[in-house]
Amino acid sequence: MKPSHIEHIGIAVKSLEETIPYYEQLLGQKCYSVEEVADQKVKTAFFKLGDTKIELLEPTSEDSPIAKYLEKNPHGGVHHIAFCVEGVQKALEDAAQMGIQLIDKAPRRGAEGLNIGFLHPKSTHGVLTELCENPNK
Amino acid sequence: MKPSHIEHIGIAVKSLEETIPYYEQLLGQKCYSVEEVADQKVKTAFFKLGDTKIELLEPTSEDSPIAKYLEKNPHGGVHHIAFCVEGVQKALEDAAQMGIQLIDKAPRRGAEGLNIGFLHPKSTHGVLTELCENPNK
Repeated sequence: MKPSHIEHIGIAVKSLEETIPYYEQLLGQKCYSVEEVADQKVKTAFFKLGDTKIELLEPTSEDSPIAKYLEKNPHGGVHHIAFCVEGVQKALEDAAQMGIQLIDKAPRRGAEGLNIGFLHPKSTHGVLTELCENPNK
Repeated sequence: MKPSHIEHIGIAVKSLEETIPYYEQLLGQKCYSVEEVADQKVKTAFFKLGDTKIELLEPTSEDSPIAKYLEKNPHGGVHHIAFCVEGVQKALEDAAQMGIQLIDKAPRRGAEGLNIGFLHPKSTHGVLTELCENPNK
């Protein structure tokens, strides 16, 4: 496995309405996209700096993984890091061979139409780690 | 303020010795530098993907900020995000004008010889945020 770059950093927030203006000021740019990902029970907002996106994640349901994160971290915080790879299925298999516990054994569809798969933070030294690729590139 | 890219992501780890081999496999590259930053009571290890570095942080003392983070997050996790700006002093002043509480009112020296300043996570929606620049570029 050899990721090319950090595709995005996922940041859990209580409220996009409060957080988007903060990041617009901090990053000196406008949020370029807001998208609901029903499957993950989140509403997302995106910024881009260099190669890497900032993905803000607001829960849309109490049983959203982001809602659970916010119970433990009420101010919000970094939820996951996503590395861009060529071939998510193969990268997940490589990770399993490294002894990493997988959350997703096969890729699924994430925000922005990416193919994504998550590795379990128990076997990635505490960092929830996503492997992803854009199938249209 | 308009950061150009994410300079690095700081990840708190219990042990560089255990974590470096994991990241070497995940990222398909060798750690290019290990450096102790006495001021912050940490030993750091670096990887680079695209524009952005992964900075692993192991505490060298029980009163290191990283040791305190690990008390709350024993498996480790993302400790901070660092944005590259032109002029850290001016960027810190801009942040203060946005109403952000500063940890550093003036830049100080960080790992790799960078000028750095931290914003308080209480006023950055839970994300410990660093502003930095390479004075030699």
